[in-house]
Amino acid sequence: MTWQKYLDKQQTKFIEDLLEFVRIPSVSATKEHFDDVIKAANWVVKRLKQAGISNARLMETETHPIVYGDWLKAGGDKLTVLIYGHFDVQPAEPLDLWESPPFEPVVVNEKLIGRGASDDKGGMLIPILAAEALLAIDKELPVNLKFFFEGQEEVGSPTLQAFIKKNSDLLKADMIFSADGGQWSEDQPSMITSLRGMVGLEIKVSGARDDLHSGMHGGGVANPIHALSHIISSMKDLNGHIKVTGFYDDVEELSSQDRSNIAKIPFEDEAYIKELGVLDVFGEVGFTTLERLWVRPTLELNGIWGGYQGEGTKTVLPANAHAKITCRLVSNQDPEKIYLLLKKHIQENTPPGVRVDVQRLLGSAHPFSVPSGHNSSQIAAEVLTEVYDKPTYRAGTGGSIPVMSMLLKELGVHATAFAFGLDDEKIHAPNEFFRLSSFRRGQEAYCKLLKKLGGNS
Amino acid sequence: MTWQKYLDKQQTKFIEDLLEFVRIPSVSATKEHFDDVIKAANWVVKRLKQAGISNARLMETETHPIVYGDWLKAGGDKLTVLIYGHFDVQPAEPLDLWESPPFEPVVVNEKLIGRGASDDKGGMLIPILAAEALLAIDKELPVNLKFFFEGQEEVGSPTLQAFIKKNSDLLKADMIFSADGGQWSEDQPSMITSLRGMVGLEIKVSGARDDLHSGMHGGGVANPIHALSHIISSMKDLNGHIKVTGFYDDVEELSSQDRSNIAKIPFEDEAYIKELGVLDVFGEVGFTTLERLWVRPTLELNGIWGGYQGEGTKTVLPANAHAKITCRLVSNQDPEKIYLLLKKHIQENTPPGVRVDVQRLLGSAHPFSVPSGHNSSQIAAEVLTEVYDKPTYRAGTGGSIPVMSMLLKELGVHATAFAFGLDDEKIHAPNEFFRLSSFRRGQEAYCKLLKKLGGNS
Repeated sequence: MTWQKYLDKQQTKFIEDLLEFVRIPSVSATKEHFDDVIKAANWVVKRLKQAGISNARLMETETHPIVYGDWLKAGGDKLTVLIYGHFDVQPAEPLDLWESPPFEPVVVNEKLIGRGASDDKGGMLIPILAAEALLAIDKELPVNLKFFFEGQEEVGSPTLQAFIKKNSDLLKADMIFSADGGQWSEDQPSMITSLRGMVGLEIKVSGARDDLHSGMHGGGVANPIHALSHIISSMKDLNGHIKVTGFYDDVEELSSQDRSNIAKIPFEDEAYIKELGVLDVFGEVGFTTLERLWVRPTLELNGIWGGYQGEGTKTVLPANAHAKITCRLVSNQDPEKIYLLLKKHIQENTPPGVRVDVQRLLGSAHPFSVPSGHNSSQIAAEVLTEVYDKPTYRAGTGGSIPVMSMLLKELGVHATAFAFGLDDEKIHAPNEFFRLSSFRRGQEAYCKLLKKLGGNS
Repeated sequence: MTWQKYLDKQQTKFIEDLLEFVRIPSVSATKEHFDDVIKAANWVVKRLKQAGISNARLMETETHPIVYGDWLKAGGDKLTVLIYGHFDVQPAEPLDLWESPPFEPVVVNEKLIGRGASDDKGGMLIPILAAEALLAIDKELPVNLKFFFEGQEEVGSPTLQAFIKKNSDLLKADMIFSADGGQWSEDQPSMITSLRGMVGLEIKVSGARDDLHSGMHGGGVANPIHALSHIISSMKDLNGHIKVTGFYDDVEELSSQDRSNIAKIPFEDEAYIKELGVLDVFGEVGFTTLERLWVRPTLELNGIWGGYQGEGTKTVLPANAHAKITCRLVSNQDPEKIYLLLKKHIQENTPPGVRVDVQRLLGSAHPFSVPSGHNSSQIAAEVLTEVYDKPTYRAGTGGSIPVMSMLLKELGVHATAFAFGLDDEKIHAPNEFFRLSSFRRGQEAYCKLLKKLGGNS
């Protein structure tokens, strides 16, 4: 039997495995699900062992656990390859917008629907299944293989860097591939050339000690929602330009080469508008949409709340108002430095009559970009071109994978994203799904990648 | 036995009655409590009958019910007096800030704590108990008395005007007193000379069809929260001046007499700041705090929401953001006209890339002011001066009681607020309470008022 046949034969079981994995509500953002993150970690350990990676174990960090596993019997003349992924997921709220419950996954029209199906449970299961197929058929792997899965990616991996630093000997590798990431489209492969960094904060604006009657006290004291709106609107103007002093200082100007490389990627604003159902694109004047998405920084509101949110009228002048903000960073922008600039801006732009409190949110990421002559990216691109039978795009991405810059810093290796999510799969939103076709194709691609890395393409 | 003795003797039972009344969660703002509003109406009918007002009944409106009751045996040479109050209450949210459950009232330190205790269940029960005492002792009332209680005050009495118009014969009276309102302080009586009007709306800002990943799409499309913040901040500047074109057109300039009358009322910003726990007072530059609270219009945010409100980070670019706004109106400002001006402003100030939808909220009120030579106000002030043994202030109030302008329009009578709530009783907020001392003193004051109106002071 070939490994291809093995994959075909096992596919129904593999889908069952993914359903079981998605059923674990391993939301890293909330304390109530902390035990579920551990449960997911234990599930991964078990699944690695079942695949033939007998040296697999859960490892503690200061917060959420890690799963490590390895198979190192290929010999010293073979490459050592580390594969990364994450088993924690985003919160599922707003729950009422899900068509089926987020943690009771279902398969509909060849799509597996559930929180984490695409990001990243489907993605990280793929290389485990590929290793299982090769081990089952060949009784060995073509390279020395290490698996490194985390449970804190969705909160910005706050304690991962310390873990990597402490375990750098265990994790060291010649090449690193990330099973978190995506492809351009169902029939167009792409390699990620850059990721944006990230930093986040929460603002609390306080007025009176208690909620007040807006008739009795309206006009007497400041309204925290109004004050918060003034703060937020001061941060970005109607041309999409971020008004925080110093924010753009470490952003490199785009060279004409950069702009021309990006312009080579086929992208139509009209199609993007239609896909998202927006009225129009919007962002910094003077840049194309792809430039804004990939190589320009952002300041986005992720949430806002205060006062009465129910039906009808409640004439309350609320005591507090809150907002969550994350920035995506590029070039040499440093998360710590940007956080301090934002905090200073908020303090300097606090309207009269209210108190403001700024808290940095856990987790951050430095911007990351792959050198153009990078070897593992080259090999990965060749495999993708073979699997898709099409030249592979070199594309940026607007997202952040904090581990990429951590691995570079601690292990000295530029990781390469080799992953199969697609943009329309509603990750971080209600009704997230993963295509079963991507799940199957990813397994084949990982088998081919490992074979090629072992010298047998 | 005197009616005073009767009140003393029954007080424990009366407090039990109020506890029972507050236990009914008669929130008019939400559909889920509609049946509780009816339950409260039936409770009031039963309590009126128990007091000796045998002609008492529930009456339907297009929405929430009315309770009407009368005792008309005083004869044609006596005044006919209508007493108003409301048995619906504000929503109790945010529930986690209540020290005891809002609908499981308790008495602590001579305060009865629960939603509606002060506004207006305690208030409207007072005249019923006063009538009971007089009927019990004198076997008759000194005037012809009508009770008129509504269940939709907290949503702006949307269908009350139609009801009053249809039942104007039933409701007609020589004088009208409102048991909804308040006093200046525990030992200082006051008569309300003016109430502000009200109009409300809800804004929904929409971006993409679904929530998006703020990394993948941040910088590509507009953020509805940011857009909403721009709209809100465009409506009122940092000097507290409302920027909506035409908003102040029907606001009369304050005369030096008006200003001097208001300045006579002792009011210290410092004490107000301390009472509310705010950093400072805030509002329209050029007016005193009392002027801003009583005779200047407002535009207040009652609620805002969009995106993720939970713990930690969720990197979402939300599909929608929402806000609720109410304005308090003065002089000749018309709710309908102001609503249209606000809507126009919002449409003209909608940032690029988003859709905006404006909905008027149910209920509104015209501004209301009492003529200075008004007879029933004079009599009420005399009773208060006697009960408190202090001259009665003539004060404005920032709140709205929509029924006041409706009664004026349909019955041609300026109602006089004769009520005993106090400003610190957290109405519309968590931990609302009513002082048992005010409850008792109110009963005495209503007995004296009715006696005086009947010619036996």
